[in-house]
Amino acid sequence: MSGLSNATRFETFGIWCVLIIAFLGLGYALILRRQVMKYDKGTEKMQEVWNSIKGGADAYLRRQLKSILPLIAVLTVLLFFSVYIVPPSEEATKRFSNLSEDNVKIIIGFARAIAFVMGAIFSLLVGQFGMRMAVEGNVRVASASRRSFGEALKIAYRTGTITGMLTDGLGLLGGTLIFIVLGIAAPDALLGFGFGGTLLALFMRVGGGIYTKAADVGADLVGKVEAGIPEDDPRNAAVIADLVGDNVGDCAGMAADIFESYEVTIVSGLILGLSLYSLTGELKWIIFPLLVRGIGVLSSIVGTYLVRGSKKGDALKSINKGFYTSAVISLAAFALLAALYMNEWKAFLCVGVGILLAVALDEVTKHFTDTSHRPVKDIAASSKTGSATLILRGLAEGFESAVWQTVVIAATILSSVLIFWGQDVHYVLYGVAMTGIGMLTLTGNNVAMDSFGPIADNANGIGELAGLDKDARKVMDSLDATGNTTKAITKGVAIGSAVIAAVSLFGSFLTDVSKIQIGMGAKETIFDTGIRVSSPVVFIGMLIGACIPWLFSSLIINSVTRAASLIVNEVRRQFKIPGLLQGKVRPDYQRAVDICTVAAQRELLGLAIIAVVSPLIVGILLGVEALGGFLAGVIISGQLLAVFMANSGGAWDNAKKTIEDGAHGGKGSESHKAAVVGDTVGDPLKDTAGPALNPMIKVINLVSLLAAPILIQYKSTDAGMLVALGICAVLIIGAIVYSKKGGFRKSNAQDSEDIAA
Amino acid sequence: MSGLSNATRFETFGIWCVLIIAFLGLGYALILRRQVMKYDKGTEKMQEVWNSIKGGADAYLRRQLKSILPLIAVLTVLLFFSVYIVPPSEEATKRFSNLSEDNVKIIIGFARAIAFVMGAIFSLLVGQFGMRMAVEGNVRVASASRRSFGEALKIAYRTGTITGMLTDGLGLLGGTLIFIVLGIAAPDALLGFGFGGTLLALFMRVGGGIYTKAADVGADLVGKVEAGIPEDDPRNAAVIADLVGDNVGDCAGMAADIFESYEVTIVSGLILGLSLYSLTGELKWIIFPLLVRGIGVLSSIVGTYLVRGSKKGDALKSINKGFYTSAVISLAAFALLAALYMNEWKAFLCVGVGILLAVALDEVTKHFTDTSHRPVKDIAASSKTGSATLILRGLAEGFESAVWQTVVIAATILSSVLIFWGQDVHYVLYGVAMTGIGMLTLTGNNVAMDSFGPIADNANGIGELAGLDKDARKVMDSLDATGNTTKAITKGVAIGSAVIAAVSLFGSFLTDVSKIQIGMGAKETIFDTGIRVSSPVVFIGMLIGACIPWLFSSLIINSVTRAASLIVNEVRRQFKIPGLLQGKVRPDYQRAVDICTVAAQRELLGLAIIAVVSPLIVGILLGVEALGGFLAGVIISGQLLAVFMANSGGAWDNAKKTIEDGAHGGKGSESHKAAVVGDTVGDPLKDTAGPALNPMIKVINLVSLLAAPILIQYKSTDAGMLVALGICAVLIIGAIVYSKKGGFRKSNAQDSEDIAA
Repeated sequence: MSGLSNATRFETFGIWCVLIIAFLGLGYALILRRQVMKYDKGTEKMQEVWNSIKGGADAYLRRQLKSILPLIAVLTVLLFFSVYIVPPSEEATKRFSNLSEDNVKIIIGFARAIAFVMGAIFSLLVGQFGMRMAVEGNVRVASASRRSFGEALKIAYRTGTITGMLTDGLGLLGGTLIFIVLGIAAPDALLGFGFGGTLLALFMRVGGGIYTKAADVGADLVGKVEAGIPEDDPRNAAVIADLVGDNVGDCAGMAADIFESYEVTIVSGLILGLSLYSLTGELKWIIFPLLVRGIGVLSSIVGTYLVRGSKKGDALKSINKGFYTSAVISLAAFALLAALYMNEWKAFLCVGVGILLAVALDEVTKHFTDTSHRPVKDIAASSKTGSATLILRGLAEGFESAVWQTVVIAATILSSVLIFWGQDVHYVLYGVAMTGIGMLTLTGNNVAMDSFGPIADNANGIGELAGLDKDARKVMDSLDATGNTTKAITKGVAIGSAVIAAVSLFGSFLTDVSKIQIGMGAKETIFDTGIRVSSPVVFIGMLIGACIPWLFSSLIINSVTRAASLIVNEVRRQFKIPGLLQGKVRPDYQRAVDICTVAAQRELLGLAIIAVVSPLIVGILLGVEALGGFLAGVIISGQLLAVFMANSGGAWDNAKKTIEDGAHGGKGSESHKAAVVGDTVGDPLKDTAGPALNPMIKVINLVSLLAAPILIQYKSTDAGMLVALGICAVLIIGAIVYSKKGGFRKSNAQDSEDIAA
Repeated sequence: MSGLSNATRFETFGIWCVLIIAFLGLGYALILRRQVMKYDKGTEKMQEVWNSIKGGADAYLRRQLKSILPLIAVLTVLLFFSVYIVPPSEEATKRFSNLSEDNVKIIIGFARAIAFVMGAIFSLLVGQFGMRMAVEGNVRVASASRRSFGEALKIAYRTGTITGMLTDGLGLLGGTLIFIVLGIAAPDALLGFGFGGTLLALFMRVGGGIYTKAADVGADLVGKVEAGIPEDDPRNAAVIADLVGDNVGDCAGMAADIFESYEVTIVSGLILGLSLYSLTGELKWIIFPLLVRGIGVLSSIVGTYLVRGSKKGDALKSINKGFYTSAVISLAAFALLAALYMNEWKAFLCVGVGILLAVALDEVTKHFTDTSHRPVKDIAASSKTGSATLILRGLAEGFESAVWQTVVIAATILSSVLIFWGQDVHYVLYGVAMTGIGMLTLTGNNVAMDSFGPIADNANGIGELAGLDKDARKVMDSLDATGNTTKAITKGVAIGSAVIAAVSLFGSFLTDVSKIQIGMGAKETIFDTGIRVSSPVVFIGMLIGACIPWLFSSLIINSVTRAASLIVNEVRRQFKIPGLLQGKVRPDYQRAVDICTVAAQRELLGLAIIAVVSPLIVGILLGVEALGGFLAGVIISGQLLAVFMANSGGAWDNAKKTIEDGAHGGKGSESHKAAVVGDTVGDPLKDTAGPALNPMIKVINLVSLLAAPILIQYKSTDAGMLVALGICAVLIIGAIVYSKKGGFRKSNAQDSEDIAA
C-alpha cells in the first residue's frame, strides 16, 4: 500500500483480501441475478400489468437521472477546482513528496472529483439497479407462487439480496480502493466519496418518498375512503403508480439510504483511524474497520444463501436463521481479529456495542410500532372516540419512542467513553465510529430483508390485478405480511445507523478542523477550545441547526400533500368516465404515474440546496465553531424528529391493521375509518419526511467537513467570502421559496402541461 | 440599600420609587376590583349557571392547593437546610461581614426559604386570585351586555387588568424587596424566589391545561361530533366543566406562566447585573432593569385605564390604543434613563430589541395562525380531501412556524452580540436578559388582554345557558371574538419570553458556576473552558436534555386523552338518561367537573419530579459541564416543540373558524367535520403540552442553578452523591411510570371512587 510504508505483510495481505471480498460480493450479486432472471414471467395478463409497472419505474428512473446529472456535473467540476482554494492536506503533500506542488494539486483535484463521481454513481447504481431487479423479481415471484411457496420465497429473497450485496460490495470497494491508492492522503478523497453517495441518497430518498406517498395517499383517499373500493383495485387510476411507488420509495430510496450510511461509517472510520495512526503510529486502527467490513460481507454471503423454505411460516424463520448465521460467523471472526491481530479488545467491544445497539433500537421500534405491544393496542383502542384521539395517542407514543431511541444512542456513545476511559478523545470518537461499523456489519442481510418487502408487496398487487387464483394469492399474502415485518425491523436500523454515522462525521469534523489548525500553526486547536455552546454565537449556530430538520420536514410534507391532491383530482376525474367504475373501461394509469414522477423530481433541487448551502452560510457568517454548534443542533433535533415521525407513522399503520384483523369492530366500522385517517397522516411522516432526514443530516455534515478548511483560513470580512455569502443567501432564499411554491412557474395548470409533455 | 455602599442618592431614591410603584400597581388592582364588584350579577337564571361555574372553579383551586402544599412545605425546609450543603456565597459573607459564620448561614437559609415561599405564594396568588376575579367578572359582563356594549367591554377588560396588575406588582415587589434587603447577597435568595414562582406556574399550567382540554375535547367529541348539538348546549353534561376549564387554563395557567417569565427575567437580569457590578464596580447595571420594570408598570397603569369603547369594533381598537399609549410612554422614559442616568445606549438598545422581538414574534404567530393569512387558508382548503390532509398541512405549517420563531430568537441573541461587540461575554448575556426585560415591559397590558379572552368566552357561555336575548348575545359574541384575537397575540409573547428567559437563566448558570469555581481557587472557570459539545459526555448531556420536552409532552398529551375519554363516557352515560336530550332533565354537571379536577391534579407530581430530578441525575452522573449541555438541549428542543404545538393547534382552530364562517361548505359540511378533527387534535397541543413547556424549561434551569454549587464541589464518586443519585433515579423512574399509568392504583374504576369521594 502506497504511502503506508510500515504496513506488515499481514496487513497488506488483509487489505487486498478485503478488495477481493468486495468483488466477491458483487459477483455474488450477478450470480443471483442470473438465477432470478431464469424464472418465467407468468401469464400474458400478468405481463401486461407488469409492463405498466416497469414502464412507470423506467420513466421515473430516466427523469430522475435527467434532473440529477447536471448538478453532479457542476459539483464534480467544482470539486476538481476546489484544490485551488482548499489546498491538498499536509498528508497528501507527504504522500506525493516526489511530485511538484502543482502536480500534487492536480492529482488531489482529480482524486476528489473522481471519488465524488464514484460515490454518486455507486449510490445511483445501488438504488437504480436494485430497483430494476426488484421490478424484474416481483412478476417472477407472482408467477412462482402459482407453483410453490418455497420457490416464491427464494426468488423474492434472492432478488432482495442482489440489492443487499450491491450495497455491501460497492460500499466496501469504494472505501478500500481509495485507501489503497491514496494511503494517508485518503481523507482528501474519502470526503468526496461520502458526499457523492449521500447527496444521491438524499435525492433518491426524497424523490422516492414523495413519489410513493403521493401515489399511496392519493390512491387511498379516493379509492378506499371515498369510493369504498379495496386496495389494488384495477378501477383505481392510481393503482399502478402506487405499485411503482413501492419500488421507488422502499427499494431505491431505502437501499441508497443504507448504502450511504454504510459508506459514511467507513469514511469516518478511516478518517478517525488515520487520526489515531498519526497519534500512535499504529496502522491497525485503519486496517481494523476494513477487515471488519470484509468479514461482514463474507458472512452475509453465507447467511443470505441459506435462506429458503418450503411452507408458510417458514419465511420469517428462515430469514432469521440466515441473519443469525451471519451474525455468529462475524462475531467469531471479529474475536479472532481482536485476539490475534489487534492484541486488544477495545475496538472489538465497540463493534459489539454496535451490534447490541442494532438489537436495542430494534426492540424500541418493535415496542412502539408492533401490533403485539401496548402502544399500538392503545392507539387502536382510542379509535373508539374517533380519529382525533387516535392521532393524539399516536403523537404521544411517537414522541415517547423518540425519547427512548435517543437514550439508546446516548448510551452507545457513553459505552465508547467508558471503553476508552481515561484515553484521548480521539479514541472515544473512533469508538463511536466502530459502533457504527458494527451496527452495519450485516447490511447485506438487512437490505435483503428490506427489499423483500416491496417485492412481495408488488407480487401481491400483480396477483390482484391479473386475477390469479386463490392458492397463489394466499402464498403471496403470506409473503407480503412477512415483508411488512422485515421492513419495519430494518427501518429502526436505518435511522439509528444514520445518527451514529452523523455523530462519527461530527467527530471527523473536529479531527479535520484541528488538523488544519495545527497546519496553520495555531496554538490551540478545536480539541483544546471545544465547540462551546456557552458562547452566544455558537448557541445561535445550534439554534439555527436545530431548525433545519423542521424546515426540511415541513417542505417535504407539503409537497406530498400537494402531489397527493393532484392524484385525488385525477382519480376523481377518471371515476366519472362512463363505464370505468363498472370495470368496462380501463383507467389511464399512465397519467397518475406521470403526475407522481413530475412531483417527485420537482422538489429535489430546492431541498438539496438547503442541505448544501445552509452550513456554508452559518460557517461564513458565524465561523467554524458556530458551524460545529450548528452540526450538533442538526443531529440532535433531526434524530428526535425523524424517530418521532417514523414511529408515529408505523404505529398508526399497525393500529389500522389491528382493526382490520377484527379488533374494535373490524373493517368498515367507525373505528376503522378513524384508523385510516391516522394511517394516512402517518404515511408521509414515516416514509418520506422521517427517512429523508437521514441523508440530509449527513449531507450537511459532509459539506461542513469539505468547507472547513476554507472557513478556518479566510475571515468572514474578506471580499471573496462576502460574495460567497451573498450567493449562498440568494440560493437558500430561492430554494425555500422554490420549494414552498412547488417549483417556479408551476401552477396546477402548468403541471398538467408538464405531465402531458 | 444595605451592602451597596456606593449607591448614589439618585439610585437609592430610584429603587425606593420602584418599590412604591410595585405597591401602586397592587393598589390599582384593588381599586379595579372594587369597581368591578359593584356591578350586578343579572337574573336568577344567570346566577344559577354562574354558581355552578364558581363552585367548579373553587373546587379545583381547593384541591390544587391541597395537592401542592405538602411539596411546598418539604421544599421550603430543604431550601433552609441547603445552606449546610451549599454554603452562602462569598458575596453573602461579605454582605454580613459583621456576623459570625453560623449566623450568616442561618440568615441565608432563611432568605432562601422565605424567598422560595414568597415566589410560590406570589405565583399562586396571581393565578388563583386572577382566576377568582375572572369568575366574578364574567357574570357581570354577561349582565352588562344586556345594557350596553361599552359597559360590558369595560368590565371585561378591567377584570383582566386586575390579573395584569397583580402580575406586574407582585413580580416587581419580590425582586425589589430581595434586592433592597440583601444587596450583593441577593442572588442567593433570588434563585429561591424564581424557583418558587416557576414551580407553582408549572403546576398551574399543567393542571389547568389538562383540566381545560379534557373538558373541552371531551365535551366536543360527544356533543358536537357524536350528538350534533352546538357548543355550550345545556344538555351536554360537560358544558360547565368546559367553562370552568377556560378559567382554569387560560386565566390561572396563563397568568402564572407569564408571572413566572416576568419574575425569572428580573431574577436573571439582577444576577447578570451583579456580575457586571463585580466586573466594573458600576451599580447602574443592577439598577437599570429595576427602573425599566418600574417604568413599565407605571405606563401599563396609564394605558390600561384608557381602554373603553361604546360600540362594536371599538373593542380591539381601544385595547390597542391602550397598548400603544403604554409603549410610547415607556420608550420615552427609557430613552431619558439612557441619556441622563446610564450615559450609554447599549442597555437601552437591548430593551428596544426586546420590544421589537415581541412585535416580530407576534407577526410570525399571526402569519401562521390568523385566518387572514395563507397558512390557515391553505389548511382550511385541504379539508376538501378530508381530515388527514388537513392535519398533515397543519403539521407542516406548525413545523415551519417553529423555524421562523426560532430564527427570530436567534436574531435577538445576535443583536445582543452585535450591540456589545468586542466586550466581555458577561455583557452579551446581560444584553440578552435586558431583551427579556424589554419584551415583558408591558406585561400588565398583555395579561389584561389575555385574561379578557376567557372572561368574554365565559360571559358568552353564561348567556347561552341562561338564554339571554339576541341583542345581549350579539354584544357578547363580538367581545368573545375580540378575546380570541387578543389571546392569540399574547400566546406568542408568552413562548418567546419563556425562551429568552431560559437563555438568560442559562447565562446565569454560567456566571454562577464560574463564580463558584473562582471561589474554589480553580485556575480556569467555565467561561474559559466553555460548555463543549465536542466533548462526548457533554454531547450525551445535550442528547438527553433534548429528550425531556418530548417526554414531557408525550405524558401530558396522554393524560389529556385519558381524561377526555372519561368525560366522553360520562356524557354518553348521561345522554341515555330519559328526558335529558329533550331538555326536560338537567344533567349532572358536577360529575364532569369532578372528573376534570381529579385528572388535572393526578399528573402534577410525576411531571414536577421529572423537571426537578432530571437535571440532578445528569449533573451527578456526568458533571456540571454536561449539565450545561443538558440545559442547552432542553432549551433548543423545547423551543421548537413548544412553538410547533402552539401554532399547529392555533392554525387548526382558525381553519375550523374559517369554515364555520362559510368557506368550503360551511358548518355541517364534510369539510367542517374534517376541520373539527384537526381542531380537536390541536387542542391539547396548543393549550396543554405546548404552554407547559415554558415553565418546565425554566424549572429545569433553576434547579440546575441551585444545584450547581454541590455538583462542582462534590465528585460523583462520593458516597453521598451515590446515595443522592440512587434516590434521584428511583424518583424519576417512579415519576415516569406514575405518569404513564395515570397515577398509582388508578384504574378507571378507582377513578370513579375518587370522584365520588
